[in-house]
Amino acid sequence: METIKIGMLGIGTVAKGTYRTLEMNRRKIEEATGVSLEITKILNRHPERDRGIDIPKEKYVTDADEIFHDPEIQIVVELIGGIDTATEYMAQALASGKHVVTANKAAIMANGQMLQELAQENHVLLRFEASVAGGIPILTAIQDPLAANEFSEILGILNGTTNYILTQMTEHGTNYAVALRDAQEKGFAEADPTADVEGIDMGNKLSILISMIYGFGLPQSQIPTKGITDIASADIEFAKEFGYRIKLLASAKKKGSKLEASVQPTLVPEDHVMAGINNEYNAVYLSGNAVGDLMLYGKGAGSMPTGSAVAGDIISVAREIQKGSAYDLTPPLRYDAKLYYNGEGNSKYYIRLAAVDRPGMLGRIGSVFGRHGIGIQTMIQRSGGNSYSKTVPVIFIVYDINRSNLQTALNEIEQEKSVMSVENVLRVLK
Amino acid sequence: METIKIGMLGIGTVAKGTYRTLEMNRRKIEEATGVSLEITKILNRHPERDRGIDIPKEKYVTDADEIFHDPEIQIVVELIGGIDTATEYMAQALASGKHVVTANKAAIMANGQMLQELAQENHVLLRFEASVAGGIPILTAIQDPLAANEFSEILGILNGTTNYILTQMTEHGTNYAVALRDAQEKGFAEADPTADVEGIDMGNKLSILISMIYGFGLPQSQIPTKGITDIASADIEFAKEFGYRIKLLASAKKKGSKLEASVQPTLVPEDHVMAGINNEYNAVYLSGNAVGDLMLYGKGAGSMPTGSAVAGDIISVAREIQKGSAYDLTPPLRYDAKLYYNGEGNSKYYIRLAAVDRPGMLGRIGSVFGRHGIGIQTMIQRSGGNSYSKTVPVIFIVYDINRSNLQTALNEIEQEKSVMSVENVLRVLK
Repeated sequence: METIKIGMLGIGTVAKGTYRTLEMNRRKIEEATGVSLEITKILNRHPERDRGIDIPKEKYVTDADEIFHDPEIQIVVELIGGIDTATEYMAQALASGKHVVTANKAAIMANGQMLQELAQENHVLLRFEASVAGGIPILTAIQDPLAANEFSEILGILNGTTNYILTQMTEHGTNYAVALRDAQEKGFAEADPTADVEGIDMGNKLSILISMIYGFGLPQSQIPTKGITDIASADIEFAKEFGYRIKLLASAKKKGSKLEASVQPTLVPEDHVMAGINNEYNAVYLSGNAVGDLMLYGKGAGSMPTGSAVAGDIISVAREIQKGSAYDLTPPLRYDAKLYYNGEGNSKYYIRLAAVDRPGMLGRIGSVFGRHGIGIQTMIQRSGGNSYSKTVPVIFIVYDINRSNLQTALNEIEQEKSVMSVENVLRVLK
Repeated sequence: METIKIGMLGIGTVAKGTYRTLEMNRRKIEEATGVSLEITKILNRHPERDRGIDIPKEKYVTDADEIFHDPEIQIVVELIGGIDTATEYMAQALASGKHVVTANKAAIMANGQMLQELAQENHVLLRFEASVAGGIPILTAIQDPLAANEFSEILGILNGTTNYILTQMTEHGTNYAVALRDAQEKGFAEADPTADVEGIDMGNKLSILISMIYGFGLPQSQIPTKGITDIASADIEFAKEFGYRIKLLASAKKKGSKLEASVQPTLVPEDHVMAGINNEYNAVYLSGNAVGDLMLYGKGAGSMPTGSAVAGDIISVAREIQKGSAYDLTPPLRYDAKLYYNGEGNSKYYIRLAAVDRPGMLGRIGSVFGRHGIGIQTMIQRSGGNSYSKTVPVIFIVYDINRSNLQTALNEIEQEKSVMSVENVLRVLK
């Protein structure tokens, strides 16, 4: 049986998952591919440290050049993370005529175009299935079996940390701080959870999906992004009362040549299949003009699920190597589509106000909405009991409106004497 | 731009969906593949009939040989359905050195091995993504991005007709006959729904999945199969009371070298993601030893969703043709795994009895279960009101037991004077 040799950069969580997956399922993979996959060298700057995995010491190298200059290594797997060094290593590997597999969304986001061009020039493959939604094979699905579709909409729950936190808040009524601590204790959230809870991680993944699905380059920094830190238990409860679940949702919509995109906490109707995606699970939902609605669900992070995706890419590259077809005729990432980017676009919104329960209060709020052409779909006002002049929550769901037009109206509403403050404004999925 | 010419056999529902998909998304597909896909000949025995689609008449041929003998045609798409003629046509196309794409599960089930060998011999591709779960890209997912996994369990809702009927029964309390008529009126069920409602269609799909995932040949006829025709509204309601939804479920489980498989109505816990798959939608759920739990959800039938999958296969074959790599090194269907087939295996069961409400009745039923070593997890007995001697439903959920051992106990229970009959026995998913 032919052997294909692999060099791995890094020996962290995902690298260990990849190594374990290839070892554990060695026989199955050999049967499925007719080839033996051998990780022969692993870049490990501190080979003396206990990595908690049984790997023959002689595989470790401390200099990445030992991998790039090894003529027997055909595939380089980049799993050190970060942007600059990882990019530099991938570029070096590609320039050395080696195929590259990575799980690094940040580097692909920042430098995917350059790396892909380098792969094309060197007639080798660059694969990054693990960089979006971990174990869920969304990139392969878009690239091949769904390639005959135009997609009008993408919805993604692409971050396990935030989905776990929101699920705990929804199911157990815990507040954000408690749920975050629980997520950290269970290993679903990092010590510094900023990139997750602020939606930045999800924005990076959405950016890669937009490039692959719409052929359009939209950096994360240009996507309107709002995290989950100001979601109150009250919002979760009122959303439930209206028949919704709050999810941190990445979304992109294409209407003709207009593209909308955002990452924000969103009220999802409870009978929508995305409302049932709970805990650390991720999902990607697509509306195709041939296939219709489609969803892929699974684990978006973790050592083994991400390792599964990296190993899948390695297998796919190995098959192409065997057939002498390990190059792309058309690159998967594209940035040249002629689209007009329209920010987050129009949407229904949920608005929670704190207001003083006195006669005429609702009428005055209602007339401000009316003046701004904002239609009210539904409303809840909690009673202040028998006495007037208490502060009560007032919640509206309003029909499709532009976020900045809505803000103008809300600024005006905040001037009303009865209104103490606008407590939260959240998008509502139709 | 290079053109790849395609011959299509048949001009029925799926053929029209395929043609429309390729036309509608022509520009996107050309951008993604760098090639123009042209259906140049279509086998249509009755070109005079109005097919409800705008296709230039000169594409129609009445003799399949015009396609097989056309040296310019590289891909043959078989969409006439049925087994014998379809198989013969596919064999002829493969023997003529043409790649074959089909949506025909019955023919793949019956003759997949022979056809695959023929494809291997002729160094061409045989693709059939559309044959299982329509638009859902499950076969590609198994074959490539998930190839590094061993799967301990497969669950499938693989038939839109039965899932639609059960959803209507669950959501609106309608009985089976009414729900079936509704499904027929909406076009989700055929005039003769036997193959769907008896689970045979789902068994064929499970058989293909078992061949691709476990490398084991298990014909549909050997899979214990039970349809939905005897599901009563009472079963749906009691299941709900216990916290379950009834779904027609295809399932396969591998423990070591032991394989279990069945198609049968199953009580699915309401917090399981498969319990939320409603109406005509299909889903495949897999437990992989690296990726963990994964689910793919979408439309399993219909002109455009199935056409999307056929078009996806055509695109994938076209890409391989361009690279000169349009052949499989290892065939996707396999039948040679050394597994011991263990029927449907052990399971929890739901049992609904009609019994006469008199003193000691429950005790006697309980002791029969006890004698047979069957543990009772939970029980409901409806009261007969104030008077004894009325017939009442008694429902048990019992712990893991072999179906035939359970049957022995049930036969004994039916001999009890208080027990009128065993009304239904249904599998319960853990």
